[in-house]
Amino acid sequence: MAVAGPTLWAFVDGHPLVRYVEALLRGAGQVMFQSNPLTGFLFLVAIFWGALDTDRWQVGVGAVVGLAVATLTASLLEVDRESLGEGLYGFNGVLVGVAVPTFLHVDVYVWVHLVIGAAVSTVVMLAVAKVLGTWGAPALTFPFVLTTWFLVIGAWSFGNIEGNGLGPAKLPTAPTTAATQLEVSPLLLVEIVFRNVSQIFLIDNVVTGVILVVALALSSRWSAVFALLGSAVALGTALTLAADTASITSGLFGFSAVLTSIALGTVFHVPGWRVLIFTLLGVIFTVVVQGALDAAVQPLGIPTLTMPFVIVTWLFLIPKEEFVPVHHKPLIGGVLRSHSAARSSVTEETA
Amino acid sequence: MAVAGPTLWAFVDGHPLVRYVEALLRGAGQVMFQSNPLTGFLFLVAIFWGALDTDRWQVGVGAVVGLAVATLTASLLEVDRESLGEGLYGFNGVLVGVAVPTFLHVDVYVWVHLVIGAAVSTVVMLAVAKVLGTWGAPALTFPFVLTTWFLVIGAWSFGNIEGNGLGPAKLPTAPTTAATQLEVSPLLLVEIVFRNVSQIFLIDNVVTGVILVVALALSSRWSAVFALLGSAVALGTALTLAADTASITSGLFGFSAVLTSIALGTVFHVPGWRVLIFTLLGVIFTVVVQGALDAAVQPLGIPTLTMPFVIVTWLFLIPKEEFVPVHHKPLIGGVLRSHSAARSSVTEETA
Amino acid sequence: MAVAGPTLWAFVDGHPLVRYVEALLRGAGQVMFQSNPLTGFLFLVAIFWGALDTDRWQVGVGAVVGLAVATLTASLLEVDRESLGEGLYGFNGVLVGVAVPTFLHVDVYVWVHLVIGAAVSTVVMLAVAKVLGTWGAPALTFPFVLTTWFLVIGAWSFGNIEGNGLGPAKLPTAPTTAATQLEVSPLLLVEIVFRNVSQIFLIDNVVTGVILVVALALSSRWSAVFALLGSAVALGTALTLAADTASITSGLFGFSAVLTSIALGTVFHVPGWRVLIFTLLGVIFTVVVQGALDAAVQPLGIPTLTMPFVIVTWLFLIPKEEFVPVHHKPLIGGVLRSHSAARSSVTEETA
Repeated sequence: MAVAGPTLWAFVDGHPLVRYVEALLRGAGQVMFQSNPLTGFLFLVAIFWGALDTDRWQVGVGAVVGLAVATLTASLLEVDRESLGEGLYGFNGVLVGVAVPTFLHVDVYVWVHLVIGAAVSTVVMLAVAKVLGTWGAPALTFPFVLTTWFLVIGAWSFGNIEGNGLGPAKLPTAPTTAATQLEVSPLLLVEIVFRNVSQIFLIDNVVTGVILVVALALSSRWSAVFALLGSAVALGTALTLAADTASITSGLFGFSAVLTSIALGTVFHVPGWRVLIFTLLGVIFTVVVQGALDAAVQPLGIPTLTMPFVIVTWLFLIPKEEFVPVHHKPLIGGVLRSHSAARSSVTEETA
Repeated sequence: MAVAGPTLWAFVDGHPLVRYVEALLRGAGQVMFQSNPLTGFLFLVAIFWGALDTDRWQVGVGAVVGLAVATLTASLLEVDRESLGEGLYGFNGVLVGVAVPTFLHVDVYVWVHLVIGAAVSTVVMLAVAKVLGTWGAPALTFPFVLTTWFLVIGAWSFGNIEGNGLGPAKLPTAPTTAATQLEVSPLLLVEIVFRNVSQIFLIDNVVTGVILVVALALSSRWSAVFALLGSAVALGTALTLAADTASITSGLFGFSAVLTSIALGTVFHVPGWRVLIFTLLGVIFTVVVQGALDAAVQPLGIPTLTMPFVIVTWLFLIPKEEFVPVHHKPLIGGVLRSHSAARSSVTEETA
Repeated sequence: MAVAGPTLWAFVDGHPLVRYVEALLRGAGQVMFQSNPLTGFLFLVAIFWGALDTDRWQVGVGAVVGLAVATLTASLLEVDRESLGEGLYGFNGVLVGVAVPTFLHVDVYVWVHLVIGAAVSTVVMLAVAKVLGTWGAPALTFPFVLTTWFLVIGAWSFGNIEGNGLGPAKLPTAPTTAATQLEVSPLLLVEIVFRNVSQIFLIDNVVTGVILVVALALSSRWSAVFALLGSAVALGTALTLAADTASITSGLFGFSAVLTSIALGTVFHVPGWRVLIFTLLGVIFTVVVQGALDAAVQPLGIPTLTMPFVIVTWLFLIPKEEFVPVHHKPLIGGVLRSHSAARSSVTEETA
């Protein structure tokens, strides 16, 4: 969640605005666990590329607005400075900012909706990090998922919030044979591997995926390796299970698995054979959960977002104290802080 | 959750029956966080007014039966006397007692259903208070919501539990323009502000709302102020978002927001500018969550009850240790007790 | 969860394979909280009887494969040896192994699905036990329920995972009178009491139920008594509420209640009058929750599995420190371990 990265503007270090911009860039990077402003900057470039390629500038602007509002809210709530500086209160805001213009028809109401949602995502982050910190687990992107679900379901209740690519709500049915037969070519497979990565930001674009992987590699080569590995394994799993081909080709069966792979494979564990097998089990199961949740949210007509990643990564991280041979990097930043805060309140009682 | 209020019958203080009646009245008051027997008595008056105005005496009697059974169950389970006396094991029972005759056709089966539900609500209260106490948060009305959901969904499974104003279960669809155009008059707005309050007890009645606000003011003026403020802001938000007008006018977009406003604005924080802004964000988001959950429960044909209040208030209270400038009144009673019990068990291990 | 039982092969004690087989048999027994290899062996016999009686050998083989894979996974993850030996990492695997061939059309894909699911059930067990251990509560069969839901919903998303007796997904409706009129005979009632027990393993078979009760009695007479008592009370409750007769007669309104009865009545409490009343309230409410969840999962076309038991037993166990007169047997094995591990990490911080 927080690999130390270079400080780009060391010569102006200390100016509040610069520190704020740096926190924003690191916040973008934290979507894939990278506390690195250059990586974060390239992530934003990748988002804009994908957004402009389909004439949806609102998605790019939404990302920046969501990032800025979420981080500013954290600042106003006087959260700990270290976590703020690491961008831990920005990554959920970026995703809210990308998701709202993707699933709702953008007008002035929806911009206000986005700003309120981004602000709330920071409050949710604080709450979720504190709860999950009890078991040493990070909040992941659950604050984004929960907040965005509330925002987009509103399209079914509010006349001034109009859905765009949502639903319709329907009951799940068994897939037809036609929907599960994919003519596979090597080129298509490679494209899907990168689309799986780009869909982390809800974008279906090969170039975006390539930029994201390069940006990731600049910060952490292992992360880039596990991103591609997870993407390929997820693709293979989805093909084996015969998932819906339109969803597979647009990367919708891979983005959660990519995040699971990075998280389990390198961020929260030290890479190794045992961890590799454990991670692959997690990646395969993420695809299973993806299929399950895709069906489960159909009666509400909403997207699963990164919930499959959140569920599987929590389940695979929480037991970690139990299997001794797997070593862990220490968590730093907001997650630990809320965790240690909870602990120190116990300590005070005990002392 | 427990502002110390006057003891009405000081001269007979000590008689068990009097203490039990006082606990019951405080329990009614605790629905809006007031440990005040007079306020609780007036709450019951307000419920009976609204119930009799629509010839549904069962709702009033249900409230008293639910209150008595829940409190008695707590007594039999030998919970701590302080929390019992403060009414903390009664407020969920009142609400179960109001909800069951509101959503189910009342006959002898449903009365038994109500009694079992009220007894179970106390067990659920103990469990939820213990779990949430881990993060210093109160159970709120979640025990009522969970228990009542189980009771009313039964109408779809049991031939002897017949729904009355439930469902039908359906898939959510985007609202039509006709449903979202409301001709607003100043008088109507004022009425809705009070109906929002009366719907806390699932009653659509202006007089009930007025009695509730007066009763609230007798115990805590700040609570009455935040109730009205939250109600007005929720109304404005629902109108801005163009929610269903029938729901708005009957107060269904405001009752959860009123509770959020009282909880965040004055009960768990000391009122102030920063808290005010934080509270308003919570109130607005409660309306968003109300719309979301209204749609989300449609496939089950059940009401949202106070779940939007519970979700938003938990999310906004749990991080509290994080933003230092906001001070908090200490929690007392059962919630703290279960919290300190959990802590002291840690202490024992540690010692 | 772990009543000490006889070691069958004391003369070969110490040989790893024997210890592994013993852990497997105890794992089967742990489905009903019995750490007893003979009881576990008879449970497997009961499963095979019911499976072969309907020509579904895959259900029996699935049980053994699920048990073996889940236990082996725990061994590879180097969980604590005591819990492993007590079978605490096997019972969810047995149930996954029974459920998958029951709800999915068995082919090579589904066997792989089953193996992955059984392995994941152990990871989920570790996570859930750690989380619930915070409040001194056991994981129960929630790891089985969660994992199996993910596996079977896949039938709506994956062309190579075909449902068999699932769904169709539909919206809940009020029951018709015809569906709730049962001609009751004494023989039928006795049969249902045993079918309620056999449905714990998703099998509708009187002989299986009888074998299970006998096997239970060999390990713990109180457990057998509470199984039959819970089964009878659940049957009476379902009849009183007029549940669907086809579901009642095949035991579907009783299996969760049987587990609740054993758990609350004897495993986690010392039997007595107060505990008896508390247990009966839990059993009756389990039937209410069964009806509620049966309706709630209809839009997804999936079974409730043992979720009603899990919910009610958690709600009724978590408050236990609160009502002092009820004594508790200490929890041992994995659940406690994760609990004490969490505590000792606090201790380390504190020290």
